[in-house]
Parts: sequence; structure tokens; C-alpha cells
Amino acid sequence: MGVENLPRTIEILTHTAEDGFDRAALRIIDQRKLPEQKSMVVLKDYHEVIDAVKTLAVRGAPALGVTGAAAVAMWAVNHAPGTSDIDGFRSGLNHVAHDVATARPTAVNLSWGVDKALNVILDALRNGATIQMAAASGLTRAKRMEQEDEECNRAIGKAGAALLPEGARVLTHCNAGSLATVFYGTALGVVYAANARGCISHVYCDETRPVGQGARLTAWELTEAGIPCTVQCDDMAAMLMKQGLVDAVIVGADRICANGDTANKIGTYALAIAADYHRIPFYVAAPTSTIDLNLDEGSQIPIEFRDASEVCDVQAYPRNVYNPAFDVTPAQLINGIITERGVIRPSVHESGALFDLRKFMSLKDVL
Amino acid sequence: MGVENLPRTIEILTHTAEDGFDRAALRIIDQRKLPEQKSMVVLKDYHEVIDAVKTLAVRGAPALGVTGAAAVAMWAVNHAPGTSDIDGFRSGLNHVAHDVATARPTAVNLSWGVDKALNVILDALRNGATIQMAAASGLTRAKRMEQEDEECNRAIGKAGAALLPEGARVLTHCNAGSLATVFYGTALGVVYAANARGCISHVYCDETRPVGQGARLTAWELTEAGIPCTVQCDDMAAMLMKQGLVDAVIVGADRICANGDTANKIGTYALAIAADYHRIPFYVAAPTSTIDLNLDEGSQIPIEFRDASEVCDVQAYPRNVYNPAFDVTPAQLINGIITERGVIRPSVHESGALFDLRKFMSLKDVL
Repeated sequence: MGVENLPRTIEILTHTAEDGFDRAALRIIDQRKLPEQKSMVVLKDYHEVIDAVKTLAVRGAPALGVTGAAAVAMWAVNHAPGTSDIDGFRSGLNHVAHDVATARPTAVNLSWGVDKALNVILDALRNGATIQMAAASGLTRAKRMEQEDEECNRAIGKAGAALLPEGARVLTHCNAGSLATVFYGTALGVVYAANARGCISHVYCDETRPVGQGARLTAWELTEAGIPCTVQCDDMAAMLMKQGLVDAVIVGADRICANGDTANKIGTYALAIAADYHRIPFYVAAPTSTIDLNLDEGSQIPIEFRDASEVCDVQAYPRNVYNPAFDVTPAQLINGIITERGVIRPSVHESGALFDLRKFMSLKDVL
Repeated sequence: MGVENLPRTIEILTHTAEDGFDRAALRIIDQRKLPEQKSMVVLKDYHEVIDAVKTLAVRGAPALGVTGAAAVAMWAVNHAPGTSDIDGFRSGLNHVAHDVATARPTAVNLSWGVDKALNVILDALRNGATIQMAAASGLTRAKRMEQEDEECNRAIGKAGAALLPEGARVLTHCNAGSLATVFYGTALGVVYAANARGCISHVYCDETRPVGQGARLTAWELTEAGIPCTVQCDDMAAMLMKQGLVDAVIVGADRICANGDTANKIGTYALAIAADYHRIPFYVAAPTSTIDLNLDEGSQIPIEFRDASEVCDVQAYPRNVYNPAFDVTPAQLINGIITERGVIRPSVHESGALFDLRKFMSLKDVL
């Protein structure tokens, strides 16, 4: 039970061909089909990987890092046996690396993973290795990254679990779970580690419009792992906080600047503002590979804008939802109440209130 | 052109029957079908009105006020001609009034409108009027409310327009537009009045999950009125604010307490927190009938919880959307970055930054 119940999100598959050299492919859970279907897909070509990345069949910064490395290594080992043209191979490899690295712009991990595999192979060639040996070293590197990702997530989970109180109610946005990594997750890694200690009582999952990763993916994997969870629309999270139902907010990250400014799924910023307003701790959980020391601060992060169809066409969601129709905005957040009798401005009244509508309504001559 | 292009959202229809007495019906735009179809429905019975209210075919606090009055008056004039049993009529009327008033719990306007028509009729009976005369006075009252609603909205618009700068970019949530009133709107009434002066350059419409009133209704009516608008998911509004694209936030209200605490569509609270954080003025536009002096403050407002299907089943939306995939959360909103090397806490560094990840990453011995 628990998190160990979940399938591995991505797995590099290898087999040794008759020529004695290894070939590789990448098996992924097709996240476009969750939560309706748990379907695994095997990607055999880097074009297929790019398509899977662009259409969000595989997503999540850490998973994209390993995917990037795997795509490069896979191309290398699958093409190496048939060639002895080092320049052609190197040029093809650079071309593949470029195309994979630029499939999505915001997550630094994708190009980070691509570069790791690329550099191992180019270094090996530079040091006199054969094309086949160089390609094999790239595959070894990608497989090590796959293993390190899980170890890293378990370490993140352990570090973060110590921050949570007994019976913690955690709110999260998007999916920084096992599905965003090779296995175990970052923000949800913290939840899984705390749950193993019996410290989690509930997880509130932001729906995460427009793509609904929270509603479709986070709720799915928490349910598979046996952790009670509820989906709320993004605009409801502040009301949960106000009701005292949230002990901590934990989110993942797509890129973290040197000063700590963090790019993550749209909506994270609004959530952080709401957590700050309610004095609820707001944590970012991420591997250090997400930290981009080339960027001083957040305005330097390129933000991906995506197609309108994501907003306009919406998938079906699970039904364990929180659905209040209204919320209450306290008077101190209101700069004016515009009525047919004129604008009522906040001011300090005898009672200490900012608005005294009884007094306002009792004035006969305001019209 | 402009707002005058829009159809009336609700209209009380009357005709004089052969017996010389008036009969009434209520014509509404069926908002369940917008924006795909502009279809008008005539409701002839109070059960049909209750169904329209519960299923949001007609919604919006001011429109619900007139709808409530119309439903009661309609029942009265349609039943009065055939009866001389005052006690039976009064008991039937009270029953209808109760059922209509409780069709939805949060908006005070619905029961406010019901009570207005009910009391006119009961007072007339008490003062010796015939059933038919009493019923007719209820209808006259409902029709006056219909007219007053529009006048009231135009007054709200005028009062609010004075608050906006030249070329204002307004962000709104849900639909407090003409579709939420008899005609003209409250929050959008301000937009229409400012637009008539040439003061509006753009309106950003929060999608407003789960029902999508912003995406489906607000964007529809602004487009019909010729005002440029964009739909964004609710979790994107804070990013628009951060980018300096929003001069003011204006929302409607379902109930306003004596101290100014305001119940409005779910998500309004989160929006107000975000506006406050960005020092953007946040205005509530509403008729004074929305002010409920029986309530001291917001925690006394009953909040309606609705069915999960609203969250799970989603309609098609228009395509003029803003769709960033990520946003940036500034370091000052982050209480800790949880990595595989441990938790990085904010503290004051020489540079003045709260996090110095270059320093953190340079420490070799942290693992």
C-alpha cells in the first residue's frame, strides 16, 4: 500500500541486440489519459518523445530532466551501431539534443537532462571512444539519472516531512507528485514521507486550471496511494485557508532563481499570496537540479504561453470535490462599495469598523 | 451599439384576459445556453421560476430580487381571478413565497424581492382589498422593481465610473453584468458607464470556476456590447496584476453585512487578497438592497455548497483567452525550499536577498 502502489512514471528500457550493442526505449504512463485509463506507452524515437513532452503525456520538471537525457541517449545507442561517421553522428546528436531541449521553454530540467547525456557522449568521443562506446556511456548516464531521481525525491520527502505537524492538512497545486518524477514525487514526496510516519490527515488538491493536473493527476495518485484527498477549484483555496483547514502549502518548481524566486505552474503565485495573507507556511519542494544559478531573479525566467484550446476544452474530473458557491471578502480588503446612492469609502468608525452601513443606510438625504 | 445592444435579461410580461383581469409571465434569457445560444424562455408558473433559479438559468443577486417578486406576483394574478377564498389564497401565497425565497440560500435579494411583493399583497388584503385588487397591486410592485433595477444600475454605473482612470483596464470575477440584473449590470454597469465616456480600454474576465460565468456570460455580454475583453483562468489573475495590466478590480455582491464584509461568488476573496497585495483598488458594486443590516459581519452569512457535478462537468468556453503555463512566486512569499540536500530557509543575506542559492549550492558538505 501507500506510494509503493504507484507505477513508475518513466522507465528506460534496454535490450541487447544481436550485434551485441544495447538498444533503448522509454516507457511512460500516458498522462493525457489519466485518470480514466492507466495506459503505458513505449516511445522508440526522439520525435515521439518530443510529441509526448509537448502534449504533456509526460510532464513535471524532474521527469522531464530524465526524459531529456533518455531521449538523447536513446537516439545515440539506437543509431550508433550502424555508423562510423563521427562528424555525422555528432551533428545528428547535437540536432536531436537541440530539438528535445527546446520542446518546452520554462522547465530548466529538460535542457539540463539533455545536456548531461549529450556532454557525456561528446566527452567520450573527444577522449577517443568509439561511437558505440560513447553512446553506451550516455545511456549509462541516463539510467543513473533515473535512479538518482528517485533517491533524490525520497531525500526531499524526508527533509520536508520534518516540517509538518501531526495530522497535517496539506494543500498543493498542480502535480508535483510521483507522476512529475521518475517515482515518488517532490511536493507529494513530502506528503508520502510524512504519511509513512502517520502524519498526514488530508490533502487538498487545487484543480489547477487550465489543464487540471491537480484534479486529474494529483487526486488520482493520492487515491492510488490511499491518502484522503479533496479537489477544489483554484479560486476556493483561499476559503479553505480562512476556515483553518490548511496547515501548510507545498508546491513543486519548474525553475528556481539564485534569489529563490520560483517559477511553477500558473496559479502558484496567487496561492502563495493567499498563504502569506493567512500566515500559512508556503514551501517549494524541488531537487537542486531545478535551481538555475544563471538567473538572478524571477523576471528573467521565460514564461511559456500555451494554446487557448487548453482553457476552452476541459476534461472530466473526479468527484471528491469541495464546491462552495460563494465566499466572504472581509471589509478590510474592500476599497469602496459602489451603490446607486454613491460610493461608500472605508473610514474609521466609532466601532472600529471600516464601514458602518447601518449609519450609511440611515442617512435619508444621500440620494 | 454598446450596452444598449444587449437584450433585457428578465421582463415581466402581462396581458389582460377576457375576464378583465391581468395575467403575468416572466420572460428570461436562458443563461444555461449562453454563449452558444441566445434563447429566451417564458416562465408561466412559480415552479418553473424555482427551477430556473436553482439551475442558474436566471442568476445574479439583483435579477433574483426582481425574479422573486415577479414569481409571487405572477402566481397571485394568475390565481386571483378564479377564487374568493381569502384564507386559501393567503395560505397559497405564503407557501409560494416561502418556496421561491428558499430556492437559493446566499443572495439576500431573492427573499427581499419575494417579501416586497408578498407584503404589498398581504397589506392590501388586510386593508380590505379584494383578492384581485391585492394581486394586481403585487404585480404593479414587481413591475416597478423591474424598472427601478435598471435605474439603480445606471446610478451605480455613474457613481463607479468616476473612480476609474482614463483607458482603464478592469478585472472582474463572475458576472455582475447586465445578465445578473434586469438590464445594465452592477460591476459591469460601472464598465458600461465608463465606456460611454471612452474610459475603458480592456476588461479581463475571470473564468470563474466551477460554473464559468465569467468565461461564458461576462465575455459574451462585453463582446455583444463591443468592449474588448479577455478571459483568464482564476489562478492567472494575480499574474495580470503583477504585470501591471489591471487598474481596478470591480465585482458584484450577493450580500453585504453592516460592517462591509461581502459575500460574492466563490473566488472573490482570493481575488481581493491578490489585489490588496498588488495595491490595486478593489471595489464592490451593488444596489443597497444587497446590504443586509441584520448581519453584523461576514461569518454570519450562510454559504451555499453546490453539487460536485458543477466542478466535474465543464462547458465550452470562448477562445479569447490568456493562457500562461507558469507564473513566478517571489522569494518573499516562500517559507522554505525543500531539496534533497535539506530545507533552505529564508534569512537575510549580505545582498539583502532572502535566499542566496549560489552560496547554498557552493557548500560541498551539505549532503
